Amino acid sequence: MSSLRSKFFDVYEVLKSELLKDTAFDFTNESREWVERMLDYNVPGGKCNRGLSVVDSYQLLKEGNELSDDEIFLASALGWCIEWLQAYFLVLDDIMDSSHTRRGQPCWFRQPKVGMIAVNDGILLRNHIGRVLKKHFHDKPYYANLLELFNDVEYQTACGQMIDLITTHLGQNDLSKYSLDDHRRIVEYKTAYYSFYLPVACALVMLGENLDNHSDVRNILLEMGIYFQVQDDYLDCFGDPEVIGKIGTDIEDYKCSWLVVKALELSNEEQKKLLHENYGKVDPACVAKVKELYKTLNLQDVYLEHESKSYDKLTKEIEARPSKAVQAVLTSFLAKIYKRHK
Amino acid sequence: MSSLRSKFFDVYEVLKSELLKDTAFDFTNESREWVERMLDYNVPGGKCNRGLSVVDSYQLLKEGNELSDDEIFLASALGWCIEWLQAYFLVLDDIMDSSHTRRGQPCWFRQPKVGMIAVNDGILLRNHIGRVLKKHFHDKPYYANLLELFNDVEYQTACGQMIDLITTHLGQNDLSKYSLDDHRRIVEYKTAYYSFYLPVACALVMLGENLDNHSDVRNILLEMGIYFQVQDDYLDCFGDPEVIGKIGTDIEDYKCSWLVVKALELSNEEQKKLLHENYGKVDPACVAKVKELYKTLNLQDVYLEHESKSYDKLTKEIEARPSKAVQAVLTSFLAKIYKRHK
Repeated sequence: MSSLRSKFFDVYEVLKSELLKDTAFDFTNESREWVERMLDYNVPGGKCNRGLSVVDSYQLLKEGNELSDDEIFLASALGWCIEWLQAYFLVLDDIMDSSHTRRGQPCWFRQPKVGMIAVNDGILLRNHIGRVLKKHFHDKPYYANLLELFNDVEYQTACGQMIDLITTHLGQNDLSKYSLDDHRRIVEYKTAYYSFYLPVACALVMLGENLDNHSDVRNILLEMGIYFQVQDDYLDCFGDPEVIGKIGTDIEDYKCSWLVVKALELSNEEQKKLLHENYGKVDPACVAKVKELYKTLNLQDVYLEHESKSYDKLTKEIEARPSKAVQAVLTSFLAKIYKRHK
Repeated sequence: MSSLRSKFFDVYEVLKSELLKDTAFDFTNESREWVERMLDYNVPGGKCNRGLSVVDSYQLLKEGNELSDDEIFLASALGWCIEWLQAYFLVLDDIMDSSHTRRGQPCWFRQPKVGMIAVNDGILLRNHIGRVLKKHFHDKPYYANLLELFNDVEYQTACGQMIDLITTHLGQNDLSKYSLDDHRRIVEYKTAYYSFYLPVACALVMLGENLDNHSDVRNILLEMGIYFQVQDDYLDCFGDPEVIGKIGTDIEDYKCSWLVVKALELSNEEQKKLLHENYGKVDPACVAKVKELYKTLNLQDVYLEHESKSYDKLTKEIEARPSKAVQAVLTSFLAKIYKRHK
């Protein structure tokens, strides 16, 4: 597995150098240097869990048959397409959220000489996916399916981002607008499709599968994505900043977090009033009052119960899958996230 | 032809209502209303020359055979995909350029409650193209070709936008960095591909043609696109604001315009100094000095000669095409732009 991992990272350099030599555009030296710098800054710096999952899933679906070099390269290339997609979302999200840092460095648009050019860089990142797919998958029988898969998932993610932005707007006027339904819808579309469904879908398409026959697998993966995001919301407030690597600001940022939705559900009138008065304020005293209320409402226990119920439900659904190989893929995803602390 | 035109505009309403009912996303009322308002604000308000050209070109390529309702609908849908692509570029370009107005109304991102959400709206517009193609072309043998064509042209446009942004940056430090080569490269990629090549390419793909066999047609259309942009640059300075509907600001905006490139080419040292000192300044006195120099250098005559040479060259290239139908398409494009004053 560790050799698959190192091969995966080698593929980044191959794809980058192909993009910089792409004859569909007549590069100047300055523009070639710009793109290289922009890619190195934004694409490889994450944990690459999504990208690596394509290779892992593909291998599990091949049930122990050794992968050829060509298969490893192609699965890795699809994995990198997901990392490019992620980079594209992050570059643009940071502009929309006026963020300051990302992966421990200043956001790309805050780099000197970049600024709003970052909008176009985001577009370029998205377009690189099409270049990679054209170069390496043009003659595959599943080429159109791949193009369509990336289109579909990008569309769903953009829709998720839209309702997140609109909901936060509405919530700022009236906190009681936030519901568990909203939370679920935002998370499913904004995160679960591209982070959980897309890696497995890529592996299935590469194996010649018709995705329409795998809607159950999709639903389980989306469910896992939602479970993952609930963990994320929990850790933002109750996680150890040393372990999760950041100081959560969901309360200050007026986020439609699972915690605030649950708190609204469990609060009496007086507690609701406290939430309305203190949620979404930068003042540390307000944040402390919200956290205090979360503790009074026993949200930590509510969360633990939710986690264990979700886990049991997912495990049963996975066991009900007829294919052992598909079970292995789903179990491996679930094992990566169950009871995580970071 | 006028009935084709009115049918074309009817298709917008059909596509819009399909997008608002798309089950790939679980719309809330607010998000559906948001998308509808965003579409109506950004997609239909232009002249729709690019979109209408798909229908016109398709009809000319069918050499007088009457089009079925289905053919008219599909060609119109592809035309609207180009209008959607254009809307996507304009929404994001306006953010990058901090523009104020577009098509006689405030830029979308300047509307109340929109702001940076416009970045995501731009992405949604781009993604709607994939939805339209999936809905109406999924079972066509040329579906992958269409997806690839839109990907290719979007990539080339984004690359053109990138070198425009980078070149303007470099030019602001040193005007002499602007060359005819830069101008041509920017215009070819940023404008000519999607405005001139794409409409005809859509019509050819719908007819089952392989675009690799039509590189000559592409080159003529790109040449026409460059010729069109030179006119645009000329009219920005010398056109009648009453007729072109806007007051040009290329000089103030430090644009790599055909005029400044020609002026740099024809200037002596003293005139170059004047250009360096006055180009890119908002002060009307500086702008007046630049325009004065353009007149001293006889740029109006230089332009007229360029226009007539380009026209003759294009005419000869069109006549050399073996297919009469293709000739008709190209001649119709050229006739629309030759000696235009707006």
